[in-house]
Amino acid sequence: MKSKLLLALLTVTLAGTAIAQVKTEDAIKYRQSGYGFMAWNMARIKANVEGQYNKEEVIKAANAIQAIANSGMGALYPQGSDKGTGWEATRVKPEFFTNKEGVTKVAMAFNKEANEMAKVAATGDAAAVGAQLGKLGGTCKGCHDDFKAKK
Amino acid sequence: MKSKLLLALLTVTLAGTAIAQVKTEDAIKYRQSGYGFMAWNMARIKANVEGQYNKEEVIKAANAIQAIANSGMGALYPQGSDKGTGWEATRVKPEFFTNKEGVTKVAMAFNKEANEMAKVAATGDAAAVGAQLGKLGGTCKGCHDDFKAKK
Ligand code: HEC
Ligand code: HEC
Repeated sequence: MKSKLLLALLTVTLAGTAIAQVKTEDAIKYRQSGYGFMAWNMARIKANVEGQYNKEEVIKAANAIQAIANSGMGALYPQGSDKGTGWEATRVKPEFFTNKEGVTKVAMAFNKEANEMAKVAATGDAAAVGAQLGKLGGTCKGCHDDFKAKK
Repeated sequence: MKSKLLLALLTVTLAGTAIAQVKTEDAIKYRQSGYGFMAWNMARIKANVEGQYNKEEVIKAANAIQAIANSGMGALYPQGSDKGTGWEATRVKPEFFTNKEGVTKVAMAFNKEANEMAKVAATGDAAAVGAQLGKLGGTCKGCHDDFKAKK
């Protein structure tokens, strides 16, 4: 009985997570790609806020960040992927795999601010976008401080 | 008079394109990142279609592809970026910078199918998603055949 329950639970868990088994090297490359693409979009939002403001460009950039933030990148951290090379050797800290509570906290903060950024971008209010960029950037840094190794 | 008109046209053009000057190496890294992240999302849509179908995961993946497709990646191909290293040495072909008409054609086809994929994903119809995946994948290949060098 107990083992049947366990089996049922296990099935539910497996169905709820990534069904496709992603290879370690691929997972590392994919996550580095997601962050790398967000970095471009953060940089151009910054350039718009500091220079000439183009509402449409900021909306596109914010939408890209939002969709990546909501994409479920957690699936790109399979066990064992604290070592390996994607585009470059991974810089994730081992703590990412042990401090689940800490990771959940920074990831949720990031998600919240990324979704908020898309909303603020839609208004076209440059000053508000600048303020939100600061908050969102703080959540990138919040994760990096704890979970990304320095170069 | 003529030069004033030219200056005005130039200003309009500059305002309409990327305002921030992106460094060549960064531009290459950013575009490789955008494509790399789409590759993950294509792979997991495929895995869903071929295995157990998870509607929510497919929607997330399709939304990420759509937002990246609509983000204006053309700005990541500044003149001179046919040479240089981002995550790796660029594999763009020089033709990308000379055959504007050809690039526009493949890019528009890609955009169309990426936006369509997001719509189809929202329906949760696995067979339709599979068919649309084929069309979308064809537009990735359409660009690669002409504009990406083989390894
Ligand atoms: C939940 C944690 C987390 C969040 C949130 C996060 N990052 Fe990262 N980031 C990482 C980790 C871990 C790596 C290292 C990945 C690897 O090498 O495997 C990384 C790598 C990167 C890289 C590539 C390596 C480098 O330093 O050049 C960039 C760029 C980057 N992040 C930018 C961002 C930006 C911009 C944001 C927010 C818009 C962000 N990140 C949000 C954890 C996070
Ligand atoms: C408009 C042209 C174009 C479209 C559309 C396009 N690509 Fe690419 N792709 C390129 C170019 C050019 C490069 C090389 C970029 C560089 O190295 O500077 C590239 C590089 C890549 C890379 C990284 C290099 C490699 O081969 O591993 C991947 C992965 C990739 N593309 C996947 C995709 C996927 C998946 C799609 C569609 C969902 C797609 N691309 C759509 C032009 C395109």
